[in-house]
Amino acid sequence: MITGKNYIGNKLSAKGNKTFTTFNPKLNIPNQYELTEATPEEIDEAVALASSAFRVYRNVPGTKRAAFLNAIADEILALGDELLEVYSSESGLPQGRAMGERGRTIGQLRAFADLISDENWREISIDEAIPGREPLPKPDLRKLLIPLGPVVVFGASNFPLAFSTAGGDAASALAAGCPIIVKSHPMHAGTGEMVASAVVKAAEKTGMPEGVFSNLNSSGIEVGVQLVKHPGVKAVGFTGSIRGGRALYDIAASREEPIPVFAEMGSINPVIMMPGAMENRREQLATTYASSITLGTGQFCTNPGLLLCMKNDASDAFIEDLAQKTVAVDAQCMLHPNIKANYDKMRSSISAQEGLEVVAEYETATQENFAASQIAKVSGASFLANKNLHHEVFGPFSMVVQCKDEEELVNIIDQLEGQLTGTLIADEEEYQDLGTIVDTLQQRVGRIIFNGVPTGVEVCASMTHGGPYPASTDSRYTAVGINAIKRWVRPFSFQDFPKELLPEALK
Amino acid sequence: MITGKNYIGNKLSAKGNKTFTTFNPKLNIPNQYELTEATPEEIDEAVALASSAFRVYRNVPGTKRAAFLNAIADEILALGDELLEVYSSESGLPQGRAMGERGRTIGQLRAFADLISDENWREISIDEAIPGREPLPKPDLRKLLIPLGPVVVFGASNFPLAFSTAGGDAASALAAGCPIIVKSHPMHAGTGEMVASAVVKAAEKTGMPEGVFSNLNSSGIEVGVQLVKHPGVKAVGFTGSIRGGRALYDIAASREEPIPVFAEMGSINPVIMMPGAMENRREQLATTYASSITLGTGQFCTNPGLLLCMKNDASDAFIEDLAQKTVAVDAQCMLHPNIKANYDKMRSSISAQEGLEVVAEYETATQENFAASQIAKVSGASFLANKNLHHEVFGPFSMVVQCKDEEELVNIIDQLEGQLTGTLIADEEEYQDLGTIVDTLQQRVGRIIFNGVPTGVEVCASMTHGGPYPASTDSRYTAVGINAIKRWVRPFSFQDFPKELLPEALK
Repeated sequence: MITGKNYIGNKLSAKGNKTFTTFNPKLNIPNQYELTEATPEEIDEAVALASSAFRVYRNVPGTKRAAFLNAIADEILALGDELLEVYSSESGLPQGRAMGERGRTIGQLRAFADLISDENWREISIDEAIPGREPLPKPDLRKLLIPLGPVVVFGASNFPLAFSTAGGDAASALAAGCPIIVKSHPMHAGTGEMVASAVVKAAEKTGMPEGVFSNLNSSGIEVGVQLVKHPGVKAVGFTGSIRGGRALYDIAASREEPIPVFAEMGSINPVIMMPGAMENRREQLATTYASSITLGTGQFCTNPGLLLCMKNDASDAFIEDLAQKTVAVDAQCMLHPNIKANYDKMRSSISAQEGLEVVAEYETATQENFAASQIAKVSGASFLANKNLHHEVFGPFSMVVQCKDEEELVNIIDQLEGQLTGTLIADEEEYQDLGTIVDTLQQRVGRIIFNGVPTGVEVCASMTHGGPYPASTDSRYTAVGINAIKRWVRPFSFQDFPKELLPEALK
Repeated sequence: MITGKNYIGNKLSAKGNKTFTTFNPKLNIPNQYELTEATPEEIDEAVALASSAFRVYRNVPGTKRAAFLNAIADEILALGDELLEVYSSESGLPQGRAMGERGRTIGQLRAFADLISDENWREISIDEAIPGREPLPKPDLRKLLIPLGPVVVFGASNFPLAFSTAGGDAASALAAGCPIIVKSHPMHAGTGEMVASAVVKAAEKTGMPEGVFSNLNSSGIEVGVQLVKHPGVKAVGFTGSIRGGRALYDIAASREEPIPVFAEMGSINPVIMMPGAMENRREQLATTYASSITLGTGQFCTNPGLLLCMKNDASDAFIEDLAQKTVAVDAQCMLHPNIKANYDKMRSSISAQEGLEVVAEYETATQENFAASQIAKVSGASFLANKNLHHEVFGPFSMVVQCKDEEELVNIIDQLEGQLTGTLIADEEEYQDLGTIVDTLQQRVGRIIFNGVPTGVEVCASMTHGGPYPASTDSRYTAVGINAIKRWVRPFSFQDFPKELLPEALK
């Protein structure tokens, strides 16, 4: 069922001779099918098709685009268990996660379909003319949001469904009226092709113009680079590493016509545990956080990689408890041998930093590609003195920083790089003392969670998934929730238009 | 009254020894006072003050920020006629324009004050918790927009009041809760200092934190470059040339932490005149456009620099008529000898292009720095073949392109660079044929005006002043109207917050 070919519009195509395979990290063997990388000609073809599709698609009514999105959801479901199996074989993630992520993907598609079923999302604004105004008549002005044009969507390694081929970036761009060209993630290109086949079926069934969707394979960076440089491409969505996201941002910014790149990148998601809560809920917090740190093998964007607390007996005991509970969780498989190798490299590099003490490490002999969780601790002073400690370790690793006082704590928060989330753990008696901490934390993050865990990103209108750089390349947008559509649109004004020429929504 | 010093927060400061003067283009003599350029130390001081002011200012309630904006408006009015005189002496613009622009500036400040008097502009969104939801409880999520941090505002040469010290960028950033550092425009730094003194008085009277506003002088690019590179600066607003705007964009994009730059740059504002309208309203159109082309000496961002029509007898006659009426308008003074020199250079360079014919040129011996208006014409084929004809000539110049058929016309529209506006002139009988033209034009512009002129930008919620690159560096925002505030804010989410810790607006 997996052909290994690219979708250039609705047609399967494999003109190139560079091939690659995906890898089953649980079995530690390559998957059997071969994927063919897109050629420069196929890339040009996909962009040309997207540009001509845009001429039609931007004027397809919202109800019909909604039908397209709902049809994609239906066709993904119709792929049945095979999709879930391929998903797991390319990611090492369990079937439960595969089902959950498919549910989220379907839910996102349907949420955007709902959103565009009427035109309210377009921020319609009408200022009627006042012909008699002095000194000058006021013209009639009507404004709405219109799509930017073809969008390139990069599949994310850690979300083969919900942030890849028909994931959040794809669904929001298609909802906005932008054709998309997906640069499939090489680690799960088989999953990508299956979902692509569902999108193509849905496009055909609902009569969408050819080129509204293409799916390109690649094992390296060349295909993505050519796409982002292409004059026909008008915006980019990416989820992944800071290095990858920044490279795309730099390419887009240096084009003759710069284009917006929304890259959701690394984050260590600081968690601040106040002394009272630490004292009173130590065990419960250790249990909760051991679970959050190891969830999905620590491969979520919102994984809590940094815990901040006061240095005292309670936090000493908490750290011990957290460490034991974390390493007691069964080791799990990582997405790919490369990701596992990178985790081990980052972990050993950070462990060698001055002042850092490894409290516990998962020790049972593990299978290949299974990650050994680790908890480390460090003093506030050491953390402040060493920026190497501020970077993400992608995997089931967390560092606890013990601060000498609140001033040091606030100083650390202030020095952090931009983050997707911050979390505050506090008892009711401590609420009154949180002013400065909340205010400082707010400047570094896109969302604060109170007495919870950062993992688990609700898909709703009030969600912000994004944050100051390097959490994202444009903190003015969210990657999750219906407002993600705002990344792909621009305001447009009609002045003194005759009614018959106005779009329906502005009449 | 003009000290020539910088405002570093509320204090006058002139530590440097590099000075410059402004120039009275009408009298063709320098103005008498000397301005002192800000030093690197003063720049650092201004940014440090802005950063510390931000800690306070971001939490100042909307009603108090509104009082500050209204007080700025009051203090600008209190500067009285002297401001208008200095304005004219530094720009060559007449008193009527000075009064009009002051009115617009005041109006913008009050409009933003109104906007932030309640919290609706923050796009508040509340999703309440559903603790019993299966399989996972839904958290309580509440979202609003928060300010980005210190914003650098560049004064615009062509709007000494409405797009400079306390103009649209300044007012929208201050409204959003961002301190601003103004890089005063060297051509009207005296006007800038006077307005700065009004802002400082208003800040003191309404108890705003020192550093919420600074005003820095400079004659070259160094001060602006240092500001945009400064890690304490979080966003940039600019109105001016493509070269200047793009340079700032490139600097901002290459920072370790890239920051958003909203640069509103050049535009030739294409006007499409349909054959019926041309036939039936030839004289009236010539009169209207002769006036629009010469308005403000052609120095508006929305000046109509390009008219597109069909090649026929009516358009031949129209061009003749337009040319005569344009050069019959009395010559007016340009903003500065440099701008006049640039206008002459651009005009003679474009006149030398293959296929371009100068139809008429203002001939009466004019005063120094007064611009000779000019109308040129060219065939659609020549225009398509030569990208040099697609660039802005800043001044009272316009080029009429005569197309052989609608296909060529649509092709030309499609090939244009991004524009602030497009204008359509059509008779009612022609409305039914406009589909492709409107659809194509919409892709290249931020606003379409129907049967009007592009000059005159209404300040209201439905205005879009911005457009595809190079009209602006981020087409997703407008520089004019209350939505200009959206450039300086980002969404922020509170998850499961106790009521007492939520901002008032989210309770």
